[in-house]
Amino acid sequence: MNKLYEFIDLFTKHQDLFQQAQQACLERHHWSPFAESPASYPDSETAKQKGLENFNSYLNGNFSINQPGTAAGYLGNEISPYTKQALGVRYPLSELDTLFKAAEQAMTAWSNTSIETRTGILLEVIEQLYKQHIFTLTYAVMHTTGQSFNMSYTGSGVNALDRGIEALVYAYQSMKSVTQKAYWSRSFGSSTISMEKHYRLIPKGISVCFSCASFPTWNALPSMMASLATGNAVIVKAHPATILPMAIVVNVFRQVLAEHGFNPDLVCLALDTAEHPIGKDIIKHPKTAIVDFTGSVRFGKWVEENAHPAICYTETAGCNTVILASTNDLDAVVRSLATTLCMFSAQMCTSPQNIYIPKAGVQTPDGIVPLQEVAQKLAIAIQAISQNPKRAAMILSVIQSDDTISLLKQLSEEGNKRGTVILESQSYLHPEYPHARTATPLMIQLEKTERDMYTQERFGPISFIIACEDENDALEQATTDVHEFGGLTAFVYSQDEAFIHLCEQKYARAGAQLTINLTGPMPLNFAAAYSDYHVTGLNPAGNASLTDASFIAGRYRITQSRRPVMPSAN
Amino acid sequence: MNKLYEFIDLFTKHQDLFQQAQQACLERHHWSPFAESPASYPDSETAKQKGLENFNSYLNGNFSINQPGTAAGYLGNEISPYTKQALGVRYPLSELDTLFKAAEQAMTAWSNTSIETRTGILLEVIEQLYKQHIFTLTYAVMHTTGQSFNMSYTGSGVNALDRGIEALVYAYQSMKSVTQKAYWSRSFGSSTISMEKHYRLIPKGISVCFSCASFPTWNALPSMMASLATGNAVIVKAHPATILPMAIVVNVFRQVLAEHGFNPDLVCLALDTAEHPIGKDIIKHPKTAIVDFTGSVRFGKWVEENAHPAICYTETAGCNTVILASTNDLDAVVRSLATTLCMFSAQMCTSPQNIYIPKAGVQTPDGIVPLQEVAQKLAIAIQAISQNPKRAAMILSVIQSDDTISLLKQLSEEGNKRGTVILESQSYLHPEYPHARTATPLMIQLEKTERDMYTQERFGPISFIIACEDENDALEQATTDVHEFGGLTAFVYSQDEAFIHLCEQKYARAGAQLTINLTGPMPLNFAAAYSDYHVTGLNPAGNASLTDASFIAGRYRITQSRRPVMPSAN
Repeated sequence: MNKLYEFIDLFTKHQDLFQQAQQACLERHHWSPFAESPASYPDSETAKQKGLENFNSYLNGNFSINQPGTAAGYLGNEISPYTKQALGVRYPLSELDTLFKAAEQAMTAWSNTSIETRTGILLEVIEQLYKQHIFTLTYAVMHTTGQSFNMSYTGSGVNALDRGIEALVYAYQSMKSVTQKAYWSRSFGSSTISMEKHYRLIPKGISVCFSCASFPTWNALPSMMASLATGNAVIVKAHPATILPMAIVVNVFRQVLAEHGFNPDLVCLALDTAEHPIGKDIIKHPKTAIVDFTGSVRFGKWVEENAHPAICYTETAGCNTVILASTNDLDAVVRSLATTLCMFSAQMCTSPQNIYIPKAGVQTPDGIVPLQEVAQKLAIAIQAISQNPKRAAMILSVIQSDDTISLLKQLSEEGNKRGTVILESQSYLHPEYPHARTATPLMIQLEKTERDMYTQERFGPISFIIACEDENDALEQATTDVHEFGGLTAFVYSQDEAFIHLCEQKYARAGAQLTINLTGPMPLNFAAAYSDYHVTGLNPAGNASLTDASFIAGRYRITQSRRPVMPSAN
Repeated sequence: MNKLYEFIDLFTKHQDLFQQAQQACLERHHWSPFAESPASYPDSETAKQKGLENFNSYLNGNFSINQPGTAAGYLGNEISPYTKQALGVRYPLSELDTLFKAAEQAMTAWSNTSIETRTGILLEVIEQLYKQHIFTLTYAVMHTTGQSFNMSYTGSGVNALDRGIEALVYAYQSMKSVTQKAYWSRSFGSSTISMEKHYRLIPKGISVCFSCASFPTWNALPSMMASLATGNAVIVKAHPATILPMAIVVNVFRQVLAEHGFNPDLVCLALDTAEHPIGKDIIKHPKTAIVDFTGSVRFGKWVEENAHPAICYTETAGCNTVILASTNDLDAVVRSLATTLCMFSAQMCTSPQNIYIPKAGVQTPDGIVPLQEVAQKLAIAIQAISQNPKRAAMILSVIQSDDTISLLKQLSEEGNKRGTVILESQSYLHPEYPHARTATPLMIQLEKTERDMYTQERFGPISFIIACEDENDALEQATTDVHEFGGLTAFVYSQDEAFIHLCEQKYARAGAQLTINLTGPMPLNFAAAYSDYHVTGLNPAGNASLTDASFIAGRYRITQSRRPVMPSAN
């Protein structure tokens, strides 16, 4: 089969889906081409079984990835948060300079091909990930991050693929808005100069994508797609605790690229260990042109300050705020908040953490409910989840890192000194995995003056009830905290439209994505692909947004060549 | 008159022009709403006379600009390169913190208004600049930068306005591509969650715009328009040698803003002296969110490395290269090159500097013309301009800074040691301004090994003939120099289509905008608004491009608020 024909075919093959995705991005309505839950996946049980078998086949063995420079040996020290056993997967360790050289060589043909060819191949990668690897990936995410099976499928699986498609939409539209050719004619004195101009899109260069410990695929896929679609190569720097999901993803990219005649070294995997991190080395590598970073605030700040001459796109963390002022259904609010505070033990950059409440209490149809009583209601609602092992397993799931367990202990001690511990954290017995690393939520009540306690992301199932003067004080404090220390999401409960309007204005300035008066079965921090923008770039929680024009714009540049032609009648 | 109605009216008033501008940006053909030359301006002589009177009225007096914080006194030390006399204009010096506070306050209403209102007002600023101030500006540019009257009008006048409109087009399209509102509905289990989502564009913050000594308005206007259109305030940091053009521009912005009900402090002027520069202070000011910098490579590099947390858009300089391999009309090539090397004494960031020629010579229909003969022809063609005072005045014009005169002397001495000075620089007698600071071009022939001589911008009428092995060696050397040290423009003369193709590829990677086989009356480095991209962002000559999507994207961010609504049938 003619290769060129085949490439065009891939874009045509996925054109219908891609047009729907473009429409969704334009209107930002709900859309996804994928089965929403594992149960609705075609021939679900067989696929799930095959995924488990594939996952098991990786354990206690050498992961095969045929990228160059792997003479340096093998590496890998992942531990399942469910079993606390080593996965025993060993990955080939490549020498960095070799990876960069290989990626650079691979870029030439890739960036010279058409936008449609690249987009078609990347949509094919998405399809392969979904049709062939989604459950393998689900188990790999589950046993590295500690996500529940369902969240591994939905959040780290199909939603990550959706976010990848979304990045492809924005990349495609951005590139297609530049004309490829122009005819230009103007008089200079009595002469006319006519020129034909050709515009060429040039990739910025090699892109380094840092994937994080808690949601590796969700952040990496959009970044990878944005960079690859615009003609760049990508080196994935996997978090040492969650290599397997990214190794699987990298291999699918490599395989599809190779099958369609491109050099698979366009996508490579770089590894390190917690003891000997290579993050700074890889960012300062002279061939690094783009850095996508998801991870800690501390390292994210270093990236932003030091990435130059590379451009960087960061998503870190901050304090996500809740303002609880008035509601017509306090029980519904409490249920929603409790569930979201428990969701994956709040190991998500969008999990709420700081709950600002007027010290007089929350207005309800039955009168003002005192702050203390609201806090108790929340504690009880959380316990209804955490004390039911089946619900706890499903919602709290397990804790990715021992560091979180230590932090819970430390904050409990501090909380008892600086405020009141309303809910102590303890482990719960996971019904399927008795050795799982688990922790029920810790909730601490503080005066708002205890800012150093709450104005940073406390990663894990940790929340603070912060007593404020009144709702306006709560808003002022919350938005000031977000402005100064970062914040991705914000949640407001109020029955006062004027106050809601003020919240919209103040949170927009502070740069947190706001959800108002939401209750019901949707997790409050659920971010829908094609609809919800993730991170604003307006506060210290990151400089990039999934996905807007600025997430794409810097990844390629426009060059031109022009030459005289005979004047035409055009 | 109702104010809201009036604002919508301004957008409507300019809608026809704006639609034509959008079409031009899409197709990148020749277009401009303005008279191309002073002579074709409506009622030209009267307008010119009035402009001269206005210009004269500023001399030896205090420039009135009613921005806050001006108790700090007056400042101003501009000297006309034509008369070498002080202009005697004194500008009110504002305290920086006061300017930032005022700009911040002014931003709220401005960013809350509609995209159309902002765009309409900014198009009105363009119209006012053109209809009321273009010749005042022409004389102000002329007597600060040393540009000829014609270039001051065309390059710093109407072309700068065109570049401003172009930035408005890209800003408008970028912002309008984000929907303001969405309806989103999805099932979660047996329930359906329906939400209305509102998307709000938030300006990044206060924008600091550095204007340069040689072309203040040309770079400043697009930056100012891009920042203001997206809702930001702008503080212009004028170069101490060329304050007057920017002070006039700032006042027009302030006047139009105030006339239409907005706080004029959206546009302020910050000043310093060569002895006590405030560049670093203003960039590191905690309220600085955006930096637009045009100027030296050295300070541009500092800006790129230190602007964070502000984002920055830079345009600096590099070595602009010419490859002279083969031609069917050597005389035409030599005439074009000579004219462009003379144009405004090469005090343009797009002026060619390094001419790479195969050591065997240049192929022509009459056989190979030896390198030495080509160099002589160029020298003679330059002398035909520089030795004719009237042509010299028109084309070479005058030298902005004494530093350039010193550099010419220094490089002449070095050139005699390291290579051969083919053409010595000397002053010429300007027919109208006998005291004008003038210098004819210096041309030095070098072996390509003398890289430290030629791999940087040598600001002023300085060019190097660089002997290369052959055309491929010339291409390799030229594109390597551009890649490592920067370059904005490149010019190739070749009759070999395969070689031209190679040049297109290599210059695209190196990131210089390429012109092929151009001869005739158009200056080789002429950059057409709406058609030619200025700077690629792919090499050290700058990270931004006038004007593409990335020039706009970071200047505003998207925030959202969402809240439940009743499920609808949509």
